[in-house]
Amino acid sequence: MTRFEDLKKLSADNVRAEIRACAYEGHTAGLGGKTLQANLAILPAEYALDFMRFCQRNPKPCPLVGVSDTGNPLMETLGTGIDIRSDLPSYYVYRDGALAEEVTDITSHWRDDFVAFALGCSFTFEHALMGAGIQMWHIANDTTVPMFRSNIQSVQAGPFGGDMVVSMRAIAKRDVGRVQDICQKFPMAHGAPVHVGEPEAIGITDIGAPQWGDPLPVQDDEVPVFWACGVTPQVAIMDAKLPICITHKPGHMLITDVPNDAETTILTTTKSPTGE
Amino acid sequence: MTRFEDLKKLSADNVRAEIRACAYEGHTAGLGGKTLQANLAILPAEYALDFMRFCQRNPKPCPLVGVSDTGNPLMETLGTGIDIRSDLPSYYVYRDGALAEEVTDITSHWRDDFVAFALGCSFTFEHALMGAGIQMWHIANDTTVPMFRSNIQSVQAGPFGGDMVVSMRAIAKRDVGRVQDICQKFPMAHGAPVHVGEPEAIGITDIGAPQWGDPLPVQDDEVPVFWACGVTPQVAIMDAKLPICITHKPGHMLITDVPNDAETTILTTTKSPTGE
Repeated sequence: MTRFEDLKKLSADNVRAEIRACAYEGHTAGLGGKTLQANLAILPAEYALDFMRFCQRNPKPCPLVGVSDTGNPLMETLGTGIDIRSDLPSYYVYRDGALAEEVTDITSHWRDDFVAFALGCSFTFEHALMGAGIQMWHIANDTTVPMFRSNIQSVQAGPFGGDMVVSMRAIAKRDVGRVQDICQKFPMAHGAPVHVGEPEAIGITDIGAPQWGDPLPVQDDEVPVFWACGVTPQVAIMDAKLPICITHKPGHMLITDVPNDAETTILTTTKSPTGE
Repeated sequence: MTRFEDLKKLSADNVRAEIRACAYEGHTAGLGGKTLQANLAILPAEYALDFMRFCQRNPKPCPLVGVSDTGNPLMETLGTGIDIRSDLPSYYVYRDGALAEEVTDITSHWRDDFVAFALGCSFTFEHALMGAGIQMWHIANDTTVPMFRSNIQSVQAGPFGGDMVVSMRAIAKRDVGRVQDICQKFPMAHGAPVHVGEPEAIGITDIGAPQWGDPLPVQDDEVPVFWACGVTPQVAIMDAKLPICITHKPGHMLITDVPNDAETTILTTTKSPTGE
């Protein structure tokens, strides 16, 4: 196994090579330098148009950063040689809406009718907030951000819909405006918060009891701030009870070659002369 | 017929009502207040997933702002009661890649397998630029912006691909940085320019001979600035020679209820308590 501290020195494509070789199976937070990381959802093509509509209609929880061709495991717009079957450290396989397997490679599961979707994740804006001097308690304390089922309704598309899942971070009151401004610059990473201040207003009755992740303290000079969360599409997929679908294991993301601050998430071989 | 000057006083939904009643069949520039206008493409469902992938992979020419359910002519995420069959002033119907009809209502053409796609348009950023004191020559002189087939290649998806079409505006050299900053804030309206300065560098040999629209002068203190253009998907659709597809007539756009400066293009009935 390659040590995490050694992996942190590698470029995104070299980290993927280690993961592909099954030399690393851990979480990806802090890896790949300043590149976009992504949630993964793989579905049979018959559900792909509805799922893509679900993402288009719910851009804050489901910012679509890449979509494979049907049956093609290469995510060509997100980086060099990305093979979605092997390049994530760990995968969950769901059957009929229930977790059936946890595996580190899905080559043997791949089918000609599969479509892979990559969705932006919170690492991008957390990185930007920390760069602006705003502390992330869960990262400093090595816990998982708390996540809650809110009463904000997703916009339905085919079998996909339901409650929006939100993540919570405690932010100093004086920093809330700055946090909103910074996050709004990252529409491909959940964008600005969906709610500030009152958990009850979005259906959260106990801030100390998240459905996913770990609780975190909110100090007197802080307010709880809620972001649309990438668990939303995972719950929507589970609730739709598809015969099969595959996702990343939480925290074990796809590391792309796309810079965190790129204007779009599409890498093309033909660059315009301005370097965009 | 309702006069253009009277229409300019109406809200977006009231302008659509006039258009739906066939009381207005002209262009939509300047109508609907500060709301997003959109290009339209309607395709049979069998091509919809590939076309949606084409838009995802080419977000600057093809910023996807709304997608209908299959067979449902209502664009519910873009405004109240929008019926895509009647709410644009004029439509082009293409068969096997060739323009077959120009009509003001497509109710009789609608099919149960149609999917409607709305794509952001340049009116949004032109409005923002003029608000910042940057003149648009083609608007001041009541001409159509010049558009060119560039040699920048779109990212292929299924049968859709080809050259990126770009629009050109002459910008004072001192304003170019400001123009880039302003336009980057509108990823749903083509975003920042794709090229500044040298037409030849993107395959344009005669700046005075646009493939679409009218030429415009570039003064000594100005440079030609090029934006990804919504004609790109129209050309891709035509080149794919689908048995049938329907688009808006150029300049005759869908007027939505989405504010030009909204963070996302999705209107939902369940607003979050912060008003987002």
